[in-house]
Amino acid sequence: MITSIHNTKLKDIRRLLRRRDGRFVAEGEDLLAAAEAAGWPAVERLVAGVDIEAELLAKLSGLASGTRALAVYEERWLDAPVGPLCVALWGVRDPGNVGTILRSAHAFGASSVAIGPDTADPYGPKAVRASMGAIFAVPLARVADPAALPAPTVALDASAEPLLRGPSTGTLVVGAEREGISPAVVAACDRAARIPIAAGDSLNAAMAATVALYEWTRHDG
Amino acid sequence: MITSIHNTKLKDIRRLLRRRDGRFVAEGEDLLAAAEAAGWPAVERLVAGVDIEAELLAKLSGLASGTRALAVYEERWLDAPVGPLCVALWGVRDPGNVGTILRSAHAFGASSVAIGPDTADPYGPKAVRASMGAIFAVPLARVADPAALPAPTVALDASAEPLLRGPSTGTLVVGAEREGISPAVVAACDRAARIPIAAGDSLNAAMAATVALYEWTRHDG
Repeated sequence: MITSIHNTKLKDIRRLLRRRDGRFVAEGEDLLAAAEAAGWPAVERLVAGVDIEAELLAKLSGLASGTRALAVYEERWLDAPVGPLCVALWGVRDPGNVGTILRSAHAFGASSVAIGPDTADPYGPKAVRASMGAIFAVPLARVADPAALPAPTVALDASAEPLLRGPSTGTLVVGAEREGISPAVVAACDRAARIPIAAGDSLNAAMAATVALYEWTRHDG
Repeated sequence: MITSIHNTKLKDIRRLLRRRDGRFVAEGEDLLAAAEAAGWPAVERLVAGVDIEAELLAKLSGLASGTRALAVYEERWLDAPVGPLCVALWGVRDPGNVGTILRSAHAFGASSVAIGPDTADPYGPKAVRASMGAIFAVPLARVADPAALPAPTVALDASAEPLLRGPSTGTLVVGAEREGISPAVVAACDRAARIPIAAGDSLNAAMAATVALYEWTRHDG
């Protein structure tokens, strides 16, 4: 049982909560259960009252309510994003939005999520938390060039004229919170489309991505 | 120019950031501009370098990046929620979700948002921030009984059989993050429906509400 804040394992986890090194931390019993369900083994696992004093674990935790369990995992990255349905993030800087999009991608059956440039680390504590376990369920790949995405690539762009319609496959490319997708990235995609609502540009990136995935995957239209 | 942390106005604002008293705080130039666009006058307005030292305002702010402007407003509440399109929150405890749903409600043209029991304060700092200005655009009303909502009332319930279809009017009732909507509230609504996706129960409350609003307001189906 760990009883000191100076314990080496704890120091290691505190460091990991700030900066990745190929491993990441997940907090809370639900996330740990999601990892187990996905067959993703923990490198380290601390349960309050069993492996560590409860107060010490609560202090370590990024959660306001403290946490009863915490584990360290190895990151997993595919060599390249896979289809038939891929979601690509291009400049989604907010880790909460990245996690929420992971959750939506999982809910709508995406085959993979591609992490493009200027996008928050999906294995960061906030993104992991917001993913509500989807981090363990949807394969991730790093991508620098839209040409590496499963085709056809569709840039989600509030200023585009054609409406997004489904069901379809390929890659849905989601852009930055404010600025949207850069003209260069739109040009590198096969086409651009907007979600069919009047005020689509006033939804945040995660909401727009969710509606787009809904539209792109529905079969009852 | 305010130069001391002990200034009475600052003490008042710090207190307000913790607990409402019929007034609330909005931070950031975008939110202040949204209030102005809505014709909602500030009771107090602090701009960095003009009314207050920049470092002092940054210290006061709940934003990690600090803030350049902050204002205090009077809360506004309707006597009762109005239609034709109302969104009711029943047990949505997360202030970020409450703010995000306000944003979606605004994007989809809701006439009002009803704040039911066990729901986070929409005028709390986190909800205000997540609303991205929608707090100033969508009228709010407190509600204790589903019978007070514009009819027909539709409970969004992942376990319901009928699919939500639009376009329609009335009230969309959104339940708690985890537990969903209680059987008693479902029974008090005119009907229950789920959003037409397989994994709808794995979306969070805000995402589910967004997809539901999208489905309920679309005219191209």
